[in-house]
Amino acid sequence: MNHEFDAIRRLFQQRVPFTHQTTTVHNGDDASVHDIPEGFEMVISTDTAVQAIHWPVDMPLNIAGARAVNAALSDLAAMGAMPAWIWLAISAKDKQSLAQMSDGIVQTCLAHNIELAGGDTTRSATNAINVTVGGLIPKGSAMTRTSAKRDDEIWLLGELGLSAAGLKQWQSGDINGKFVPHFQTIKPQLKQGIQLRELGVQCCLDVSDGLLQDTGHLCHGSNLSFEIEVTKLQTLQSYQQLPPLFGEEKSLEMMLNGGEDYALLFTAKPSLHSKLLNIGAHHIGQCVSGDSVHLKNKGQIIDYTMNGFDHFA
Amino acid sequence: MNHEFDAIRRLFQQRVPFTHQTTTVHNGDDASVHDIPEGFEMVISTDTAVQAIHWPVDMPLNIAGARAVNAALSDLAAMGAMPAWIWLAISAKDKQSLAQMSDGIVQTCLAHNIELAGGDTTRSATNAINVTVGGLIPKGSAMTRTSAKRDDEIWLLGELGLSAAGLKQWQSGDINGKFVPHFQTIKPQLKQGIQLRELGVQCCLDVSDGLLQDTGHLCHGSNLSFEIEVTKLQTLQSYQQLPPLFGEEKSLEMMLNGGEDYALLFTAKPSLHSKLLNIGAHHIGQCVSGDSVHLKNKGQIIDYTMNGFDHFA
Repeated sequence: MNHEFDAIRRLFQQRVPFTHQTTTVHNGDDASVHDIPEGFEMVISTDTAVQAIHWPVDMPLNIAGARAVNAALSDLAAMGAMPAWIWLAISAKDKQSLAQMSDGIVQTCLAHNIELAGGDTTRSATNAINVTVGGLIPKGSAMTRTSAKRDDEIWLLGELGLSAAGLKQWQSGDINGKFVPHFQTIKPQLKQGIQLRELGVQCCLDVSDGLLQDTGHLCHGSNLSFEIEVTKLQTLQSYQQLPPLFGEEKSLEMMLNGGEDYALLFTAKPSLHSKLLNIGAHHIGQCVSGDSVHLKNKGQIIDYTMNGFDHFA
Repeated sequence: MNHEFDAIRRLFQQRVPFTHQTTTVHNGDDASVHDIPEGFEMVISTDTAVQAIHWPVDMPLNIAGARAVNAALSDLAAMGAMPAWIWLAISAKDKQSLAQMSDGIVQTCLAHNIELAGGDTTRSATNAINVTVGGLIPKGSAMTRTSAKRDDEIWLLGELGLSAAGLKQWQSGDINGKFVPHFQTIKPQLKQGIQLRELGVQCCLDVSDGLLQDTGHLCHGSNLSFEIEVTKLQTLQSYQQLPPLFGEEKSLEMMLNGGEDYALLFTAKPSLHSKLLNIGAHHIGQCVSGDSVHLKNKGQIIDYTMNGFDHFA
């Protein structure tokens, strides 16, 4: 038997024994086959993490592996989907890198009860992890970027800027800094996404490129203006935690443009207001006619550069 | 609007306008959503191609892009599935590489009427293309690696060794060599896979790692011995074409272990024999009790090293 396949079996298949009830042809064949239950749709997304781009070269590879899977799962959270399977493609410099990345990937699959339904392992000059995630959702109920309505309220579930702060500490050599755990550990808000969908929320995304840039995606997707009120962001825990270390201005910058927050940004009818407060969501703004993102301070538009992460700038 | 997203939209979404009838949430959201028709299952597979590993550094990147998509589609052919969507993750050194890879990917999607249902684009020190392919199949009809039965005949649809010969010519500097087109152009046998499935074939894979190694996968998957008769391989066109250039021994070596053939290797009940001959399949051997791959010459077992490609040997 070929060593490559032995390695894959040992590192992955044997360690993630869970199979989803829908799966009729399992990992190890040319493809996996799934019987979607009546009344449900399948939800699929793909996401790549590359060493030195998405994670620092000095980050342990098991942490990078866990981050890659959790970041991909966050896209399912944004749709309100129930996670079911991942298909994994790992590019590794050597066997040791492969084993380390696999440790974090396996732990994450086990933690979320997700089937490792397929995979591909290859050598590459650059360590990289591609994760395709799949899940189920009741027909017609997916939360999308295009479903915001005029007069919807804008909400946030989760914190902002903490991951950016952790990255900053890591890069400055403070690898035990207070915020580093927020950078190392991505927590996809899967249960919260399902909860929002069940409450009737229709427009949602997960904040991965920075609040302002991602608000822009909802704004263009839904053909509305999105007004974010800065003073409402000051109710977030992050706004209490960041300024003592980074000052007011830098803290706000990290909260608006930081990236990798994986908070859920969504809009909802005003009638859901009290229910959303009850589950810990933060009301941060308002959808109005127009086609722009406006940042406001006590109702006055303030000038602010939208400056998310651009891979090919 | 962010440059990265503009580039993705321009390079991909606008150029692959086709959407599959099942798709209810399209490319551009956090995930795509698909409503699988009653009576069908979904089939998913993921495959990665890395520059300098899966294609030579001097191969034009549009060719590499087309190869990556076609290689992934070949896994659907092996299941007998109808292709429907791909989700694409490209890692590119620079914008020019991204644009070139995208050209080949877009052309391939258009050629097969496949929806580009989602994607992720990232910078990387290494050009790489990950393709997740999805398709539909009537419930319970997928061809698998585990379904061979004792006394099944072993069949091959497609040629062997031509891609390996093309790679050899390319590597020796003969980039206009006779066999180079077989290496550059991967032709997934999608229609043939569907045809085999409809004929009642149950056990199939696509030959990507070399005939002997892939026969080993069927043998272990189905708990049978697979006997391949060398003299029957001599009915393949490749056995006519290769020896004049490479000699008998090297030609056989390329046919047995070459890799990237993307021929369909399958087993079938003897009652299908004449139907399979009619569609151009080659009868190359026999399933018997046991657990090994045997190469035979006029019925006598011959000793031969199984020597497929191992990424981490």
